[in-house]
Amino acid sequence: MRDSVLIVGSTALDSIRTPRGSRDRLLGGSASYAAVAASFFAPTRLVGVVGDDFPSRYRALYQRHGIDLAGLQQRAGKTFHWAGEYEPNMNRRHTLLTELGVFAEFRPDLPEPYRRSDWVLLGNIAPGLQLHVLRQLARPRFIAADTMDLWIETARDELLKLLRQVDLFILNDGEAAQLTGETNVVAALRRLHALGPRFVIIKKGEHGAILSDGDGFFVAPAFPLARVVDPTGAGDTFAGALMGYLARSRGSLETRLRRAMLYGSVVASYCCEGFGLTRLDRIRREDIEQRANLLRQYARI
Amino acid sequence: MRDSVLIVGSTALDSIRTPRGSRDRLLGGSASYAAVAASFFAPTRLVGVVGDDFPSRYRALYQRHGIDLAGLQQRAGKTFHWAGEYEPNMNRRHTLLTELGVFAEFRPDLPEPYRRSDWVLLGNIAPGLQLHVLRQLARPRFIAADTMDLWIETARDELLKLLRQVDLFILNDGEAAQLTGETNVVAALRRLHALGPRFVIIKKGEHGAILSDGDGFFVAPAFPLARVVDPTGAGDTFAGALMGYLARSRGSLETRLRRAMLYGSVVASYCCEGFGLTRLDRIRREDIEQRANLLRQYARI
Repeated sequence: MRDSVLIVGSTALDSIRTPRGSRDRLLGGSASYAAVAASFFAPTRLVGVVGDDFPSRYRALYQRHGIDLAGLQQRAGKTFHWAGEYEPNMNRRHTLLTELGVFAEFRPDLPEPYRRSDWVLLGNIAPGLQLHVLRQLARPRFIAADTMDLWIETARDELLKLLRQVDLFILNDGEAAQLTGETNVVAALRRLHALGPRFVIIKKGEHGAILSDGDGFFVAPAFPLARVVDPTGAGDTFAGALMGYLARSRGSLETRLRRAMLYGSVVASYCCEGFGLTRLDRIRREDIEQRANLLRQYARI
Repeated sequence: MRDSVLIVGSTALDSIRTPRGSRDRLLGGSASYAAVAASFFAPTRLVGVVGDDFPSRYRALYQRHGIDLAGLQQRAGKTFHWAGEYEPNMNRRHTLLTELGVFAEFRPDLPEPYRRSDWVLLGNIAPGLQLHVLRQLARPRFIAADTMDLWIETARDELLKLLRQVDLFILNDGEAAQLTGETNVVAALRRLHALGPRFVIIKKGEHGAILSDGDGFFVAPAFPLARVVDPTGAGDTFAGALMGYLARSRGSLETRLRRAMLYGSVVASYCCEGFGLTRLDRIRREDIEQRANLLRQYARI
């Protein structure tokens, strides 16, 4: 289906410790968060890799959200396992463990039907793999890409090559400063446009996000949350919901992107209210609409 | 005049070093920034104290903005002198020097006409002095107060007494965490309402500000600036412009507060574009309206 969202990224088991508690081997990875988030809005296709230890209940979770798993590869070996711990204020985290397992050899080959996807989210994986996905696609309408500090440091040339081919580049403020050398967000946005993307979104966590089209901005609010349980995956959730909303909305791209960011903030806020995907797994589209209405009120001038 | 804004706070000479340069003995102090900002919108009355070394060009600056100086005391001795230096990213600063001079004995006695002011901004001075001002007022319509880390630490009881008597409490995120023990902004807002104020605004610098009325929020955007020269006084400027706008607007307080915060963000953005008050001194109401229109567009969903 042309209004499907194709999501490529990591699929992992996450062991997470925050000031609110800890959980072992939850379903995680950039593609998992983004796919569940997108699935509230549009048909969603997932490309990732898991080992033969991947729990069937996590496969069931994807299926419960109607996610197409034709692109989820299963290989002999262990699923990518990440463990991390958050500082008391949850603005910083430390990686305790990274066991790549089958993810070390991940090659995101697309099933034939996936090659005709209009809305493509290249979640946070090596830029070389993101480029490999692009080469398999038949004229997608809109390509968004995320990244992380590791790739900016170790695969800058491939990342720069990727950026010349994407419509929307999504990254957080720290990554934007790292990539451009500019701590000022507006100055960083200018430099990021010069690398290729027509649209750039810089995510600022609890402070919301800013969209630039090279001409003007949209300053998107975060949903004010009284209690954050676990911020893991909030950025991936934001991107996934944004793409899901874009795929199924009509009107000018500029207007849709603003609303898509509002929905991204809302779904990300639910994500932060539970460990891993546990809270997102329990909400429905009505919950999202309710909070989207509130956030619209909170932002109305 | 009942629609005047009364501003009480510090008046100082500031020596400032930022990554963009340094300047010596500029006009500064919470009352100076707030008064110039308010003067774009409403008749403004200033209460402060300066020494006999206070440059006549700074008195002329106030007068150029139509600020009523009947409440500006001049005493034998030196004007409050502050020196500070900002870190490279300008999010933190270090105080290099604090010479209180005549400010050490400041007693904000109001000239008789000032006692009938409807809109009162108690800028950042000792809570005991802020309370002294309140005792002299004849039924003001709206009282806002700002504070700083020093008073939260050294004059908490008087600050708590003050908070039971103000309509709007304005503070930054660090101060809110310090006063409430909550780093989560929403949780901090709840605790701040419990201390008395009907409205609370937590300022977050480049990330904007959030207003709470105890029931809902307004998430106010900051104006995206490509180049910050000196952030000194931006918070005082925000508060001053907000009060000036409130004093001269009509409609429900809730709607006016949202627009007032938008104007506060805009005037604060101009403040950051020059050292001290140098940029604010050169703009006109049209400049403010132009940027307010842009910021409205940037926040429209």
